[in-house]
Amino acid sequence: MEIIVTFQENEEKKTLVDVTADNLIEHILNHNMQPGDKLPTESELTQLLGVGRSTVREAVRRLATRNILEVHQGSGIFMSNKRGVPEDPLGVTLMGDDMQAALQLSDVRLTLEPEFAAIAAMKATKAQLTRLQECCALVEECMQRGENYRKADIDFHCCVAECSGNQILENIVPVISSSIRISIQKTDDAYRQYTFEEHRQILAAILRRDPIGARYCMAAHLNRSREFFAHQVMNK
Amino acid sequence: MEIIVTFQENEEKKTLVDVTADNLIEHILNHNMQPGDKLPTESELTQLLGVGRSTVREAVRRLATRNILEVHQGSGIFMSNKRGVPEDPLGVTLMGDDMQAALQLSDVRLTLEPEFAAIAAMKATKAQLTRLQECCALVEECMQRGENYRKADIDFHCCVAECSGNQILENIVPVISSSIRISIQKTDDAYRQYTFEEHRQILAAILRRDPIGARYCMAAHLNRSREFFAHQVMNK
Repeated sequence: MEIIVTFQENEEKKTLVDVTADNLIEHILNHNMQPGDKLPTESELTQLLGVGRSTVREAVRRLATRNILEVHQGSGIFMSNKRGVPEDPLGVTLMGDDMQAALQLSDVRLTLEPEFAAIAAMKATKAQLTRLQECCALVEECMQRGENYRKADIDFHCCVAECSGNQILENIVPVISSSIRISIQKTDDAYRQYTFEEHRQILAAILRRDPIGARYCMAAHLNRSREFFAHQVMNK
Repeated sequence: MEIIVTFQENEEKKTLVDVTADNLIEHILNHNMQPGDKLPTESELTQLLGVGRSTVREAVRRLATRNILEVHQGSGIFMSNKRGVPEDPLGVTLMGDDMQAALQLSDVRLTLEPEFAAIAAMKATKAQLTRLQECCALVEECMQRGENYRKADIDFHCCVAECSGNQILENIVPVISSSIRISIQKTDDAYRQYTFEEHRQILAAILRRDPIGARYCMAAHLNRSREFFAHQVMNK
């Protein structure tokens, strides 16, 4: 049985700007450009891509709105650190009910993250494990200093995703964990203490290469905030 | 134990355009505006939001790049049908290796879609079930006419997500199922025949309110293309 792989082409007709943006992406991929790398100047791109300056400018602007490129006035065009992931990529802004959205996000996270924590326990490289330990320690440092540890917390979850080796997940996790506009604070330190212990358990399970442990430690951790959101939504 | 819910504020300083864009979103949410709805004119928005015309224009442009709004020259500003989900929201464009990306997307889909097919079997409303039957029939019609059924296929999977009642998933599924640039075609009709039967099985399980059936029919269906990608990547 013969198999043919076709590259999906957009059926709509492409404009010159579309084609130029595509060619620019090809240039980026062919040169394996990484976040922070500098692109050729606007004039060089004009030559390279064989189109006028205004077309280049429009194509660059389009890739900038997609967080692929960044234009720094005066110093040039650079690869964005956001790896092409735009703002609020899942349209959570339009969902309105924050508590309901938070519950639904928890459900999606509970489906994805425990599974990929298990994969992380099987696949993480030594360098990734070191970084995961650092991420875990950073959350604890923020807590001890009494600072807001939300960003460090998200970084820990992103790092677990990275340890799984799945780049798609690596792009989804920051999105689902940061797009939610609600965070929970309790007036005593109970919640903080739980996060502290649960992150340590997840880390320990991944370090000892225990996929089942990693899965259920992650599930228990995520379920704590889900319980909170569920009570809020269902007692309405 | 007292619980405080805080709304996460962006710590960076906001510009007038940022604030205007936020106010515009608030207006949209307060008026429960739906895809296709027409917004006030630019002059009316100037009055409504208490800022100058160029600020309004920039805020509208920003929401347009996020696929929240659409500007139709001459006829006005409308709510986009894309529900605020921008182009390639997961940055797949920058992943480069298409076959590897396809495999990783399959892994993420296999984690999410079977679970939510099970939820769909429990939660789908009558109206949603009717729509799911229509989506299934549409794929078959495309096949029978010998047309490309890729879009109809994606719509079927999106409809299952809709049946689960999880709006986040509803926004993720079209993204993960359409962002992949590879599709599989076989020179005989085997692949087509499989899709035909497997979609029917998923539909039947959801219709008979059988969550376990729905879960595993979906898993088997998605695993067929995963098998293909896995062979490609691992035989390299």
